[in-house]
Amino acid sequence: MGFIIRDAVRSDVSDIHRLIKELAVFEEAENEMVLSLEEVANDGFGDQPLYHCFVAEDSETHKVVGIALTYLRYSTWKGKALHLEDLIVEVEHRGKGIGSALLDHVISYGKSIKVRRIGWEVLDWNTNAIALYESKGAKVLKNWYVVQLENNE
Amino acid sequence: MGFIIRDAVRSDVSDIHRLIKELAVFEEAENEMVLSLEEVANDGFGDQPLYHCFVAEDSETHKVVGIALTYLRYSTWKGKALHLEDLIVEVEHRGKGIGSALLDHVISYGKSIKVRRIGWEVLDWNTNAIALYESKGAKVLKNWYVVQLENNE
Repeated sequence: MGFIIRDAVRSDVSDIHRLIKELAVFEEAENEMVLSLEEVANDGFGDQPLYHCFVAEDSETHKVVGIALTYLRYSTWKGKALHLEDLIVEVEHRGKGIGSALLDHVISYGKSIKVRRIGWEVLDWNTNAIALYESKGAKVLKNWYVVQLENNE
Repeated sequence: MGFIIRDAVRSDVSDIHRLIKELAVFEEAENEMVLSLEEVANDGFGDQPLYHCFVAEDSETHKVVGIALTYLRYSTWKGKALHLEDLIVEVEHRGKGIGSALLDHVISYGKSIKVRRIGWEVLDWNTNAIALYESKGAKVLKNWYVVQLENNE
């Protein structure tokens, strides 16, 4: 199969939502995802988008088979930074270079908007992903913990 | 001493920059900080601020003795989220509850802007900070790695 990488548009929202759900299942945290389809639409494609998403589209079927979802962060050491929140490829389309192409696209995007750093997180057992990231020159830092405080009000 | 927590203003920039530098030294990464004073000013106090900072001010001397620097992130599980990039208290003013008060302020701010999650990162050897975070109900996740790709062009 061939595929193209392009900016996501509003009509991709159901695919984006579906792939996020797939990743939550893969990460054994399906119940953690409380985000609705409407929120994904409004948050990404309103007046002040909270994220910028790219999709991988099958050139023949025109189906979305992968996404890379990003947003800006701020490093007090490096300044404006890009964060890769999710890099997801459908299970049946893995091993075809789609994740690598999406990541390359995000790296190019980061250069185009002149960020000094692109950051993301990976589960320690996801060795395939870690190998991919290191092949792109990324550093995997093992001495930081991620801290989260949930607000369930 | 007494202290107050307030929003940072442009005239706090030199203190913010100084405290960021202090933290970089504490984290044994002084050379990693390439951000200039002008960048800290423009990035935080321009038309489209990239971060929102709070300061702790000594009630008597009116000196800034601590900062909490935040910005918005986006969780594909929880939606709009707040990130605490830096929580810094001057070495000679630690142990007075200033860090705890700054963190409480950030948590209140997060509730006021209706985020479902506040997130941050901590070095694995910083046990005092970890104890403080856990006392606020935060979860310290030990199974994620932080990944960074620097763009040095």
